[in-house]
This record gives sequence, C-alpha cells and structure tokens, in this order.
Amino acid sequence: MARFEGALARASARHGLVPAAHAEIISRVCESARFDSAALAREGRAGTLTIPLVRQLTAQVAAVSKEAATHVHAGATSQDVIDTAVVLCLKPACARVGELVARLGNAAAGLARKHAQTPTAARTLLQPALPVPFGWKAAVWLSMLARSLAGMRRAAGEACVLQLGGASGTLPGFGDRGEKVMVALAQDLGLPPSFVPWHSARDRFARLGAELAIVAGASGKIGRDVALLMQLEVGEASEGAAEGRGGSSSMPHKRNPALSMAALEAAQRAPGLAATLLVQLTPEHERGLGQWQSQWFTLRELACSAASGAAAMAEALEGLEVNEKAMHENLEALLPHQARDSFGAAGAMIEAALREWAAATSPGTAP
Amino acid sequence: MARFEGALARASARHGLVPAAHAEIISRVCESARFDSAALAREGRAGTLTIPLVRQLTAQVAAVSKEAATHVHAGATSQDVIDTAVVLCLKPACARVGELVARLGNAAAGLARKHAQTPTAARTLLQPALPVPFGWKAAVWLSMLARSLAGMRRAAGEACVLQLGGASGTLPGFGDRGEKVMVALAQDLGLPPSFVPWHSARDRFARLGAELAIVAGASGKIGRDVALLMQLEVGEASEGAAEGRGGSSSMPHKRNPALSMAALEAAQRAPGLAATLLVQLTPEHERGLGQWQSQWFTLRELACSAASGAAAMAEALEGLEVNEKAMHENLEALLPHQARDSFGAAGAMIEAALREWAAATSPGTAP
Amino acid sequence: MARFEGALARASARHGLVPAAHAEIISRVCESARFDSAALAREGRAGTLTIPLVRQLTAQVAAVSKEAATHVHAGATSQDVIDTAVVLCLKPACARVGELVARLGNAAAGLARKHAQTPTAARTLLQPALPVPFGWKAAVWLSMLARSLAGMRRAAGEACVLQLGGASGTLPGFGDRGEKVMVALAQDLGLPPSFVPWHSARDRFARLGAELAIVAGASGKIGRDVALLMQLEVGEASEGAAEGRGGSSSMPHKRNPALSMAALEAAQRAPGLAATLLVQLTPEHERGLGQWQSQWFTLRELACSAASGAAAMAEALEGLEVNEKAMHENLEALLPHQARDSFGAAGAMIEAALREWAAATSPGTAP
Amino acid sequence: MARFEGALARASARHGLVPAAHAEIISRVCESARFDSAALAREGRAGTLTIPLVRQLTAQVAAVSKEAATHVHAGATSQDVIDTAVVLCLKPACARVGELVARLGNAAAGLARKHAQTPTAARTLLQPALPVPFGWKAAVWLSMLARSLAGMRRAAGEACVLQLGGASGTLPGFGDRGEKVMVALAQDLGLPPSFVPWHSARDRFARLGAELAIVAGASGKIGRDVALLMQLEVGEASEGAAEGRGGSSSMPHKRNPALSMAALEAAQRAPGLAATLLVQLTPEHERGLGQWQSQWFTLRELACSAASGAAAMAEALEGLEVNEKAMHENLEALLPHQARDSFGAAGAMIEAALREWAAATSPGTAP
Repeated sequence: MARFEGALARASARHGLVPAAHAEIISRVCESARFDSAALAREGRAGTLTIPLVRQLTAQVAAVSKEAATHVHAGATSQDVIDTAVVLCLKPACARVGELVARLGNAAAGLARKHAQTPTAARTLLQPALPVPFGWKAAVWLSMLARSLAGMRRAAGEACVLQLGGASGTLPGFGDRGEKVMVALAQDLGLPPSFVPWHSARDRFARLGAELAIVAGASGKIGRDVALLMQLEVGEASEGAAEGRGGSSSMPHKRNPALSMAALEAAQRAPGLAATLLVQLTPEHERGLGQWQSQWFTLRELACSAASGAAAMAEALEGLEVNEKAMHENLEALLPHQARDSFGAAGAMIEAALREWAAATSPGTAP
Repeated sequence: MARFEGALARASARHGLVPAAHAEIISRVCESARFDSAALAREGRAGTLTIPLVRQLTAQVAAVSKEAATHVHAGATSQDVIDTAVVLCLKPACARVGELVARLGNAAAGLARKHAQTPTAARTLLQPALPVPFGWKAAVWLSMLARSLAGMRRAAGEACVLQLGGASGTLPGFGDRGEKVMVALAQDLGLPPSFVPWHSARDRFARLGAELAIVAGASGKIGRDVALLMQLEVGEASEGAAEGRGGSSSMPHKRNPALSMAALEAAQRAPGLAATLLVQLTPEHERGLGQWQSQWFTLRELACSAASGAAAMAEALEGLEVNEKAMHENLEALLPHQARDSFGAAGAMIEAALREWAAATSPGTAP
Repeated sequence: MARFEGALARASARHGLVPAAHAEIISRVCESARFDSAALAREGRAGTLTIPLVRQLTAQVAAVSKEAATHVHAGATSQDVIDTAVVLCLKPACARVGELVARLGNAAAGLARKHAQTPTAARTLLQPALPVPFGWKAAVWLSMLARSLAGMRRAAGEACVLQLGGASGTLPGFGDRGEKVMVALAQDLGLPPSFVPWHSARDRFARLGAELAIVAGASGKIGRDVALLMQLEVGEASEGAAEGRGGSSSMPHKRNPALSMAALEAAQRAPGLAATLLVQLTPEHERGLGQWQSQWFTLRELACSAASGAAAMAEALEGLEVNEKAMHENLEALLPHQARDSFGAAGAMIEAALREWAAATSPGTAP
Repeated sequence: MARFEGALARASARHGLVPAAHAEIISRVCESARFDSAALAREGRAGTLTIPLVRQLTAQVAAVSKEAATHVHAGATSQDVIDTAVVLCLKPACARVGELVARLGNAAAGLARKHAQTPTAARTLLQPALPVPFGWKAAVWLSMLARSLAGMRRAAGEACVLQLGGASGTLPGFGDRGEKVMVALAQDLGLPPSFVPWHSARDRFARLGAELAIVAGASGKIGRDVALLMQLEVGEASEGAAEGRGGSSSMPHKRNPALSMAALEAAQRAPGLAATLLVQLTPEHERGLGQWQSQWFTLRELACSAASGAAAMAEALEGLEVNEKAMHENLEALLPHQARDSFGAAGAMIEAALREWAAATSPGTAP
C-alpha cells in the first residue's frame, strides 16, 4: 500500500500535479515507512484499512514537510490502494505458483519419457482395465498441467493490473491528466494499466481464482493416483522417503503418502474459495458492499492452496519410486489374459503431451 | 450419443477397421434410431447410460444386419460416448450464450455512446459519491462483458473437443490406426481432436464452468444496478414495460424488475455449480467414480444460468428507460455542491471500453 | 400450487371471508384442474409462475361461477403459493430420504453385529494401520448415519411449514382473521403454521439443504470405503452382483462398484447446491431478487442427491459380500507382526453405535 | 494440543496406565510448555503437526524425567490431538458467536417492540408494496435469529466433543480401560465424550459449519436491509455515527454503511467455506487424506465470519437511527393511496417472534 502511495506521488509529479520536491519526500517516506499494525487493525474495522494507513503515512510525511503531506493519496480512493496492493502481492505469488507447476510438469514429463514402455494396469472405476505404459499415465497428467499452467498464467497476467479510478472511478482528481498519471503509475509499479477501472467488475479475480483452484485440483488428481498406487496392497509407486515425512505419531511402521495428502487437502479447499469469488461478481453500483474488502483473504488462501498442492506433487514426482516389478506382478495377477505389449496409440499420445508441455513452457508464453 | 456411434462406424470404415457396407448400415440406423427412454433410465442406473443405449442400438442394427451389429461401438468406451455427447450439446449451447452476451454487450455499448454526457450520481457503498456520465457506468459493464465473452468463447473452444480413448484410454481397439480414426471421427463430428484423452483430466470442463458462472455473474452485476436504479425512491432507470412482465399477483400497482431478478437468480445459482466442477478434478486413475457420470447435469444448469442471465439483461438494456430528469434531480438533491460537468477521464474510458468490446467481438476472435 | 389455492378457499370460507358455496366450487376445480404447461412456462418468465397459474385457475373457476372466480387466490401473494408448494413436495421427498437412510443404517447395523469379531486392517492415510473388527468399521458408519438421519428429519420438520403472509407479509387481506385463516390452512394442508412469514428469512431451507448434503456425504463416505475395499488388489468386500450392474461397455470382464459410484457422485454434487442456499440468505427487504424464485430447483436436486446416495448404499450394504478370507490374508501380508485379537474398546464402541442408531430410529423421534 | 497431552496423562494415571508421579510431571510441563513455532511449521509439513509437537514436548518432559517422557502421548494418535485441540478452540469461539447473536437479537427485539406501530413501506422485489410497521420488519429478522441461535448452539454442542481413538480408532493402547480413560479425559477437558470416534465421520463439523454460515447469512440479511434503508434516496434508517466509522478516504462528505458492509462481507465469504466442510465428508477408511488436516483453517474462518457479521449488526441495530419522518414521507410519496393503519396480523406476528426469541434464549436452552 505504501508502495502505491509513493509511486502515485511520483506519477503525479511527472505530470505536474504534485511539486517534484514534495513527491520526492513522499516517495522517500513510503520506502521506509513503518506502520502501527494494531492501530491499523483497530481503525480499519471502521470500514477500510486505507484510511488509517493514509493517516499514519501522512503523519510521517508531515514530520518532514507539512506541505508535502497535503499531497499524500491525492486523487486516489481507498479501493485503488487496496486492489493494487493485492495485485502487487498476487503477481509474484502467481509467478511462484507457475514455477512450482513448471517443476511438477517437468517431473511428470520425465516420468512420461522414462516409462514410455513400462506396463502397468490402467484402472477404471478403481478396477483393473487393461495394460498401459506408466509413462502414458504421466502424459495424461502432463497434458492437464500444460493447460493449467497456461490458463493460470494467462489469468494472472489479465488480473494483475493497476486499479486507479479515484473517488467516483472517473479519475476526477487529476484534471485532464488522469490517463497520463495512470500510465505513469502503471509503469512505475510494473503493472499494465486498466483504462476502465474495475472497482465493481471483479471478473478478473474470479477467473484467476478458478485457475488457481484448477492448479490445486490438477495437483490433487496426481496426488489421488499416487496415494492409490502407494497402497501397500498395490505398491506400484511410492513417494520418496525423506526424514520425518509421512511418519505416524502412533505407528512407527507406517509410511504415509504425506505429499499426496497435502495436494488432496489443497484440492478440497480451493473450490469453495473460488466459488466465493464467483459469488462476489455483483457489487452494488460503483463500489460494492463486501467484495473488495475481503477478496484478499480469499485470493491469499487460493494462491497458498495452489502453491501447496503443486509444491507437494513436484516433490513427490521428482522423488517418485516406481516399482516396475510390482506393476508386472499385479498385471500377472489382475489381468492374466491381457497382452502386455499392445499399447494402442499410447506412444503417440505421450509425444503429443510432451509437445503440449513444451508449448506451454516455451519462453514466449510466460507472461 | 447415436451421432457419435454413427460417426465412429464411418471413421473406422474409412481406415479399414469396419467394412464399408456395415458402417453404412450402422450410420443409417443411428440417424433414425429411436430409444426406449424408460429402459435407458432404468438400466442406466446400473452404472452407465451407454450400455443400455448400445444394447438398444445394436438390436436395431441387428434387425438390418447381424454382422453389422458386431461393429457397433467397436473400440470405444462408455465415457467416450457420454463425454462427446455432452460436448456436442455444449458447443451450440455456448454459441447461443455467446450470441446473448453479444446482444447484451451491444446494448451496453449503445448506452455508453448515447449517455456519454448524461450526468448521474456515482454511488459507492450505496451512498452518492460524485457525478459521472451514465454512459461511463455502462462502459464499466461493457469492459467486463468484453472480457467475459472472450473468456467464455475461449474456454468453450478448448472444452468442446472429441473424447476418444477406448477401454484403457490408449485406443487399444484400433490397432495402429487409433490416431487416424480419432482424426476422422473428430472431423466428422466437427470437433477438434484431443490427442491425449481427458477421461480423468476434467480441467477443461471446470474452466468452462467458471466462465459460464462469470457470464451469469456479469449479467447479475448489471441486474443489480438496474434493480437499484429502478427503486421508486431513485427512479433513474427502468426495465421497459412488456405485457405481463413484472406484475404482482397481489398488488396490481407494482412494476417489478423481473429481468434483473432473473439475472440475479442466475448469478446466485451458478457459483455453486461451478464449484462442483472444481471439486471434481480428482478422479481416480483412468476413470473416476462420480465425475463424468454427473457433469452433464451441472454443465446443463450452468449453460442455462448463463443464457438466462444474459438473455434477461440483453432484453433489459435494449429496452432500458433512462430517466435523465430524475438523474438531474437526484444530483441536485444528493450532491448539491458538486460540479456537474467535471467527468475526469470518463470520456476516454468510454472509448477504451468500446475498443475492448470491438476487439472481443471482431470476426477473428469468435471460435 | 392448486392444492394451496383450494385449501386457501376452504380456510377463508371457514372464517367467513369467502362464501361457502364459492369456496366449494374453487376447491372442486382445484382438485381436477389441468394447466397448460407451455403457457405457464412462457408467461412465468415474466417474473413468477403464480400469475399465469392463477389466471388459468381463475378461468376454470369462472367457467363454473364468475362470482366464485373473484375469490381465487384472495389474500395470498405469489411467494405464498410457490413456497408452500415447494414444501408440499419437499415433505414427502424428505420422508423418502429418511426411509432410505433408515434402510442404509439398518444394513450397517447388521454388518456391525455380524462382523463384531471379524478382523480386518484399519487403514489410515490409505496405509494399513492395525487390525480392527470389520463390524467396528460399520459401527463408525452407523454412528454418522444416526446423527445424519436425526439431523435431516429435524431440519425437514422445521423447514416444511406453511408460508402465508399476503402482499406485504402481514396478512393484510384477511382483516382481523389472518391468524385464524393461517391456522386453518395449515391444518388443511397438514403443515405446521409459521406465525412469522419467512419470505425473506430463508434459513430453514439453508439448514435443510446442508442436512441433505450431509446425507449424501455420509452415503458417499461409505461408498468411498466400499469402492476401496472392492479394488481387486484388496478384495475384502464387494457390492453384490445384479444383472447388468457394474458392467463395462468395453471390458466384459470387469465388475465395477456402480453403487458406490452413484453415492460418490451425489456426495460431490450436493455441497455446491447446499452452498447456493447458504448464499441466498440475504434477500432484499420483504421479498428478494432471485432467492425464492429458484430454490425449488436447488432443493429438488439436493433431495435427489441425498436419495440417490442413500438408496445406492442401502442396496450396496444389504447385498455386501464380505470376504473374511481375504481380510485374513491381507492382515497376514500387511501387518504380520500385529496381534489379531486385541481390539481395544471396539466391542463397546459397536454397542454404543447400535444404541445411537436405536435412539435415532425409535418411533418417538421420527417426525 | 499441550492441554490435551497433559489431560491424557492425568486420565491414564487415574486408571493405572501411567504412574501418578510421571503423569504429574507431564501435566506440569504441559501447562508451561513453550514451543518452537518455526520448527513446528517446518516439520509439520511432513504430514502432521502432532509429531513435531510431541517431539518437543517429550524433550521438555525428558529434561525433568526420562521415564515420564516415555508416557507422553501414550495411546493417542495425531488426529486425536488435532481434532480435540480444534474443539477446545471452537467451543469458546461458538460461545462468543452465541453471545454476539444474543446481542443482535436483543437489539432486534427492542426495535420490534419500540416500532410496533411505526408505519413504513414493505418493499418487495425492491419496489414499495404496502405499509407495515417497522417493528414487524425487525420481528422477521428476530424470528430468523431465534432459529439461527438455537441451531448454532445445538450444532456447537454436538460438534464440540472429545476425539480419542488411538492408532486404529479402537483405543488399542489402553488395554481394557479405553472407555474409562476416555470418560476421564473428557471430564478433565470439559467436553462430552464421543464413544464412537469420528476421525472419518466429519458430519458434526459440516453441520456446525453450515450453522455458522447461517449466522453470517442472517446477519448479512439484516445488513442488506439496513444498507438499503440508509441509501440517501431512502433515508429511513442509519447506522449510528461513531468516530472514524464509515468514512471515505476520498470523499469526506460520505457516511457509509460500514457495519452492514462487514456483515455482507461475512455472508458472502461463509458459504464457500461451509461447502468445503460438506465436500470433506468422504475421507478414506479410518483416516482420510486432507480432511482433518485442514478443517481447522476452514472452521476458524467460519467462526470469524459469523462473529464478524453478528458483532457488526449487533452494533448497528443497537445504535440504529430510525427516521420515522422519512418513513412517513416516503409512504406519502410512494404509496399515497394505501391506508397507513391497516397492519393485518403484524401485531400478533411481532408477539410470536418475541416468544420465539424468548424460547431460544431461555437459560435452559443454552448449552
């Protein structure tokens, strides 16, 4: 929030709305400003966190220059600050989620390649169906991850934009230079501008929320499969051992699918959060009652869920212990009369998934 | 479903897997097949609707040629039929939703242009804030609609693809010609192929579900504003009168915002449905327990919600009665000391929204 | 809806607001009234289904007596008719759900008793933990079913009440006899009265929706366990065979957990529907925009989900094939060093669950 | 969690499973134990927070007595500790929510009594309908609050029970004294025992989650109405002024419905959270993947939402400024031809709501 206020002063100064010296002071104070969090929390309950924050910031600027203090927050409205601050947090969070999904996908791609000829039982409705290569199973994961990575990055790119509209949304406080200040501010903060303000148009956050839930769900899907394969009765794959991981407080003999569990936890928690953002698409008029005031909570939890799920399964697939012998023995036991070497189009499908993944992760596609 | 089975026979014949004469018979029967719905419902409860449907279809083919009947459904699995049939319904449904959103957006664009200089009160947290042009308010709606139309069409294009994997997902029943049959089948049905099957990768439906909920939500946002403006105490805009619409069974004097109500209904119902698709991202292994078996219900309701909301608000905005006099009087009463003619960057914002809308609806962008 | 209108005429006549002869005519017409559904659908889109229905009904009464026709729907409002009609459908639907849960619980109780000493592996985080009696596992299901049956019946009893408020909600159309007509109408329809109208207080439907989702979820929990036990690699229990059930359209060798699948489908679909009712708790003023107009859809789907899940698992548990030999062999293989006969407090827990079930199903508790 | 471990040692000692002196040491250490949160967070990621907590606790006990340390956590499993700790937090949280709802209801009851004869316009579908007493409007709120308070307290009483099952759920670590230890532990912690463990039966949390969401929704309903009445164009009621509350960072002239906004925020956020708990009803076997590991997050947010909404509206109704003059003028303007003094059964309805409230808050009903 302070970063927004500092950049706003600089952008306004660039276009002659704030004296350069005053903007310089505001800018410097914003960089090192310290806030009384307890006071923010207490006073923020009166409706918006921006008011006490601007009050504290103004006091700190006034300690340097009373005149400069009159320009703090000039032209902006509470929601401009809150929404842009959320975006400034979301952008690196989504980049981090993207890195984790990239790691997860790379691990899945490795399995797809390595096990392109490793026979295992396909299982439909939890019953053995026919032999397939284990690498093909990883390719199905990969194809979903390719779409999910691309979708999440696209949604993050579209959602992480500047909010600036001022009191009414029409930038009334900047005379005829509103657009110019907006462009300068956007550039300063490293965000694209949104020429039409989105105080009451929350579709971009809703779309990003859904994509983050899809990342969590895609991770959970892989976790579901790994946990099922790791059942002692199946034993075809296992999360790699790590000190302390997957232990039990009451049964030292156990080795639990702790990473898959984390991914399934995220996959169960994310949909309700994403639904909240879909519910909040109908704010009243130019600024609604309850939407922007709370979406940071929900987006934070969604980004955490997606990151948690992707990180867990990246680690799980990177260290996955594939038990080809168990796969072979299970096939013998479960599907004794099925040919082991008739994989249909599995090979071409693996190639297709690898191409999809390459396209999703090629340098040109990341925002 | 019959259309899938007919096209599958033709595609298999094209690549030498089914005798042409038999495919011809299957194809013809599929075109005119009639099914015993009660039997389908009764037997479908045993797990999948495909089995009784294929049974009935096979019997009808066998009545023509017993040999041809042995080729019905050859190589496909239940979920191939169900998922592709859902897609064949979804595709025109989404096209229809797109048309309705286009109508809605065109109406909003018309208001944005016509009322670019009509002063009205911006209202934030349901309190009057500052004067803005009413056309600017419509431009904020329009910007959201531009993104929502583009997002929905993109998601529909990505989701409406062929499902073909056969028993295990690797097309084991087509020898070395699986991919070729897939391409031929896709072409026949007018759907893009999905080289990697998506029996257990449900992200595309989840993404489309979220976009449909966003369309419903965007329509609901406009409905929220219209209903608030239509309050008799405000009286600044009103849904056009139509015979029978908005009446009351107990109070003939009333004129209710019936179209806005329909849009808000859709906006309230869609998020929970979209969440269901996000919950269903973790099927077990190659075919899950409960996801594909039910997603048609949910997608149908979502498409209906989106269509219902967009249609209602298209009609509402096309016939919207804007009361400039009431806007003027309210401004005098509510914001007596505010300048009426200082709209900041509102004009440029309206232009920006119109450009966004033009880009979203240009011929090149529709799938 | 016609049943409501007929009973309203009778109740109004009992308290002197409608001539007895006219009420008799309305009552008779309502019993045999036929409606033009297409016209209802078309005209209902104007805002409420009640208006065209009352119009059609009035015309049918007028064909008998023009004077009687003036008393049709007198004093009631659209939402009185819709909400009460929903309740008249919900009440038997919930009773049916209750019967199915009772069947399911009785089957679980039977397993709890029969297998009170049958050792099987407890599985935590999908890994074998320690031996427990299989009957104890059923007792854990049973305890949840006891609470869920009681909770659903209580919520249904509280939700299935008369709606009668008239135009404003204060029964303005009945002079000083509003309460008396309400009591008479309630008695006639076999519903408790709600002295305070609930047009805008939708908590009872929200509570019932959650309880129906819990029934679906409890059924899904049992389905989850049965499907896992039925994995060929585990083989400890199996849904009984039935003609056509659990078959595969591509793999005749398979036996799928079709009933568990149905229960898991319901458990995945119900939460989003229940959330919709929780979202709809904030109608505007005395009658809201979009809540009561749509809740019948959602409640119908919820009742179907709960019934579908409970019916499937009742059938599954009634016919459950328990493979004690496989349980024994799995214990030998999975937990070779664990005592087989040390079940802790399992016996007492089974007794406790059976007592909870007896309490939940004793004649005094069913509404 | 430490409180659980201390009480477990005492209960085990009471029944001869742990030497009294050792239990005394464990008990004392638990009371003053300090934990390294960073280590808990880091190591907890391996699957369960209990393992590192027990490790740290054991080390602190071992510093006093190595022998006593061997009895820490004896007989319990990770989920026993986590679930019971959640319950120990939830119980006072729900009691606090109950107090806030009681305050809110008392304020609504005060309005119902005071304004039993104050005419105001009923508004249906946001259009003026007929005159009703403002106190009757408050009575409709009150009736919903009476049910919601009773429902939430009942669900909290049922959900806030001890979890104790040990490794498998059958209390295998307590010999034949499992039930006795359970009862002693329950008594020590002031919680009812649950004779059947609920590790995988999460219905009680799901039910409580729905009731907390209903409290948030009921508060949001009142907030919706107050915010609408507070529109400057309506002006019939207003949240009382308080220093700093409802201000605007850009428009000092504004007075925003900040409390209603907080309640609507809660009402929008709670349904998705409650849905998460409904989704998590299907854990695998005796301990699931992802449910209990995350429900504390969700329950915490739900309790916060309910408390936030109820507290905001309690404050709003306690200080509500009712503008009878504006109500009168609006009636004259909006419903000029309607009688002002014909309130139907409004008076009796107010009495009924006050009785319902008295029943819900009578000393015998609070748990």
